[in-house]
Amino acid sequence: MNGAVSLLNTLQTNGVNVCFANPGTSEMHFVAALDDVPGVRGVLCLFEGVATGAADGYARVTGQPATTLLHLGPGLGNGFANLHNARRAHVPLINIVGDHATFHEQYDAPLQSDIGALSSAVSGWHRKTARPDDVANDARDAISASYGPPGQIATLVLTADASWGTLMSTASSWPLAIRPSLNEPDVGDLEAAVKALRGENVALFLGGDALGKEGLELASRVGKATGARVITETFPTITDRGAGIAAPERLIYLSEFAASQLKDVATLVVVGSREPVGFFGYPDIPSRLVSEACTVLTLAAPGTDAVSALRILAEELKAPAFESPTGERPSAPTGALTTATMAQAIGATMPDDVIVADESNTGGVHLFGATQFCPPHQWMTLTGGAIGFGLPAALGASVGGGGRRVVAIEADGSMMYTSQALWTMAREGLDVTVVALSNRSYAILNLELQRVGATAEGAASRRMLNLEDPTLGLAAIASGQGVPSSTVHTADGLVSALQHSYATPGPTFIEAVLPAGLN
Amino acid sequence: MNGAVSLLNTLQTNGVNVCFANPGTSEMHFVAALDDVPGVRGVLCLFEGVATGAADGYARVTGQPATTLLHLGPGLGNGFANLHNARRAHVPLINIVGDHATFHEQYDAPLQSDIGALSSAVSGWHRKTARPDDVANDARDAISASYGPPGQIATLVLTADASWGTLMSTASSWPLAIRPSLNEPDVGDLEAAVKALRGENVALFLGGDALGKEGLELASRVGKATGARVITETFPTITDRGAGIAAPERLIYLSEFAASQLKDVATLVVVGSREPVGFFGYPDIPSRLVSEACTVLTLAAPGTDAVSALRILAEELKAPAFESPTGERPSAPTGALTTATMAQAIGATMPDDVIVADESNTGGVHLFGATQFCPPHQWMTLTGGAIGFGLPAALGASVGGGGRRVVAIEADGSMMYTSQALWTMAREGLDVTVVALSNRSYAILNLELQRVGATAEGAASRRMLNLEDPTLGLAAIASGQGVPSSTVHTADGLVSALQHSYATPGPTFIEAVLPAGLN
Repeated sequence: MNGAVSLLNTLQTNGVNVCFANPGTSEMHFVAALDDVPGVRGVLCLFEGVATGAADGYARVTGQPATTLLHLGPGLGNGFANLHNARRAHVPLINIVGDHATFHEQYDAPLQSDIGALSSAVSGWHRKTARPDDVANDARDAISASYGPPGQIATLVLTADASWGTLMSTASSWPLAIRPSLNEPDVGDLEAAVKALRGENVALFLGGDALGKEGLELASRVGKATGARVITETFPTITDRGAGIAAPERLIYLSEFAASQLKDVATLVVVGSREPVGFFGYPDIPSRLVSEACTVLTLAAPGTDAVSALRILAEELKAPAFESPTGERPSAPTGALTTATMAQAIGATMPDDVIVADESNTGGVHLFGATQFCPPHQWMTLTGGAIGFGLPAALGASVGGGGRRVVAIEADGSMMYTSQALWTMAREGLDVTVVALSNRSYAILNLELQRVGATAEGAASRRMLNLEDPTLGLAAIASGQGVPSSTVHTADGLVSALQHSYATPGPTFIEAVLPAGLN
Repeated sequence: MNGAVSLLNTLQTNGVNVCFANPGTSEMHFVAALDDVPGVRGVLCLFEGVATGAADGYARVTGQPATTLLHLGPGLGNGFANLHNARRAHVPLINIVGDHATFHEQYDAPLQSDIGALSSAVSGWHRKTARPDDVANDARDAISASYGPPGQIATLVLTADASWGTLMSTASSWPLAIRPSLNEPDVGDLEAAVKALRGENVALFLGGDALGKEGLELASRVGKATGARVITETFPTITDRGAGIAAPERLIYLSEFAASQLKDVATLVVVGSREPVGFFGYPDIPSRLVSEACTVLTLAAPGTDAVSALRILAEELKAPAFESPTGERPSAPTGALTTATMAQAIGATMPDDVIVADESNTGGVHLFGATQFCPPHQWMTLTGGAIGFGLPAALGASVGGGGRRVVAIEADGSMMYTSQALWTMAREGLDVTVVALSNRSYAILNLELQRVGATAEGAASRRMLNLEDPTLGLAAIASGQGVPSSTVHTADGLVSALQHSYATPGPTFIEAVLPAGLN
């Protein structure tokens, strides 16, 4: 038995059952070993950023790590941006980075680079495994490390000779990873939070694990008991939503509006997150979003049991029973396709129990509102700001979702980073509905340009912000990757296309043509 | 005046006239400044790997650095793979990486990451500029550093507040970068090389700057005078080729064949390169390609004046006049499209003075032979092994090529990494002919699989190596990005499509359907 087979056996033994792979020569024994260990499913991705984003999406939905399979430093580099998003999402994820045989390293061959330096910028755990007999234990340690808490990226560099070399001894069983419990909330913090919540102008700020159905209900009850506001992160890793589920305020993306939203908060009790800060720094806008007078009490940072903390608060504060908000989903829109009618179309048609991968950016401003009373569903967003997340995450969520449909709502500019995910959706026959919002613009940058105080009146600068000339044919790009595609120009057309997609197994791509630019 | 404007002025003053840009919020002032400094041309790229590969291609053709414009750590990460290729090509290249405002860093906002660690894995020079008044000098230092010798990657991290902040004082002129001369060859090495070349079983091994027309002629003359073989790098940064130009042996890619090619060489005189080594390590195949008895004499490593070294050798050895090899270009093929007839079609039709960006991989095995007697042209290859180079490099070569046509010969698997380059070719109206070789396979991996001693007989492993199910519609992907496209299935069809492309301004995309897999 070689190191690669021992690696896959260790993964399988520990329930790590999916590998999003973009292999090269140094990973050929790993690839061959997929035949020997059928419990690990290899999913081929045509670009590493697809593999890493898919592993992120998989982890968000399952709570379990998948592995990537990447080819040396350049492969890890190509995967970096979506690893960055996964790091910010605090999900467990294991990179397996193939590397040169140990005896080959001294020659500085063309593909060699400093994998350790690259990895250090995104991994919480990193190890290079150089002997076949070490592979299984190193893989076990990588799995354990990925769990955190909070979840993190563990990168195992698998040298080619550790992969192909024969084990000197084979243990009778494969090593078991340990998944540590979440940290318990601190008793003093809990007491301080209870005390604060009995006062005025308090807000609970929820993120991470607090955004599941139970956490949201508990927070809603605490709010009801105390008058505290309940506000969620702008960009949740994954949150439960829909009819019957608590729907708190969402922190606004733009710093100045977020600061206005928080200006009267005297105490912010943070559960499952960190104190919110501006996405960017701007001239003359503070980076912190709470007022200077506000006390921030972090009850549960990522890695601490947020639901348990909320349960204790609810009990201590004798919170009343949960009352679910009431409302109606929108009816099917007709007429022109705008960001508003696009959102209504999605809200009017969304089936039960979908997973939404939202990288709609400026085009998605109405989506949250339009889907609040849809059937219960889960919603994933761009946690790290590195665009190119949506399609890969949808792919991974579908692989991990046990047959649930995934709805990917994707901006045109973002889609162009990692559209290769579409091919893998087609190959794997995944039930993914992609709605690609064509506004022919980096609309967010037109907005940000003004906010940073820059003016871009000239042709040279405007040309850096629009995606016209030529217009992207998003549907053609999807068709070329084997995904049935259509282009819609009206709200009715989008409704029909969505209904058709939801009734059709496998992926469907809908190019939704919106008014140009920011709207 | 703000820091961004001073940066662009410094670039312009030093002849750095092109910026391949993928901007985000932190780069908005740089974008706005493009209106103020019209001497710097902004070229929008829809993915950072396109921007970095384009800057590489630009430098190969012009010898001058272009800049990239990248958005924080994830932007640099997305650009990493093609930066790796550029590092291995020893070209000058300047990254401008926008970063958070200095006052914002303490908050660890979502897009923050360790840019320095990432950069260290690929940059020869790195600096973060934090004050508007430092920007011009820092940019000057980046330009100087990029020149090496040899050329290298200089990464300037431009904080948002250094970019938008007003300069306290403006100098009367912008700082000038210094381009150092190449290192002179060592006299002792020259004497040793002359002595060796008077002996038996000597080979000149050429790379880098030695691969221009003059270096190749000089080496050919030395070979003629001494009986020494002349062998070139497998993957040149850029080489002159075609009728009237010396055409030495090329080192074979596969280690075992390369070792066989070199087995009788008693002294290898290296000019413009390093000792060749295997691209990968394999079980039971040595990493070094020369025999154990071979003496390796490095006369000119990258950064040393290879042409000067060859000129001295030719003089010392009283080398005869250059005789150009004679031969005919192929005639236009008909019938089935294979790797052989594809190469003939290109050889039969290639116009004068083109630049070839070759990422044909296994499909391109016949290309060098079929084009040897075409009109003089230049040829660029994948120096660092990180696929996704070809289309971006073709884009950059065209921008830098002063109206010369670029022919990009691209494998399907590689194309899928960075196909977004096509959109920029269309936008900029560049005369690029893309021939995309569709063999529906990572054919190189099918080959490598056997060579590393792995067997992949099962469905799981085979599925990681082929690109079928679904078949990629490469022409549709190109059309969707605004490039006129066609698909050809015969040799005649390819000849016609090439002739049409060469007669048509702007980019053209030809999907050439080859037999499946390795052939």
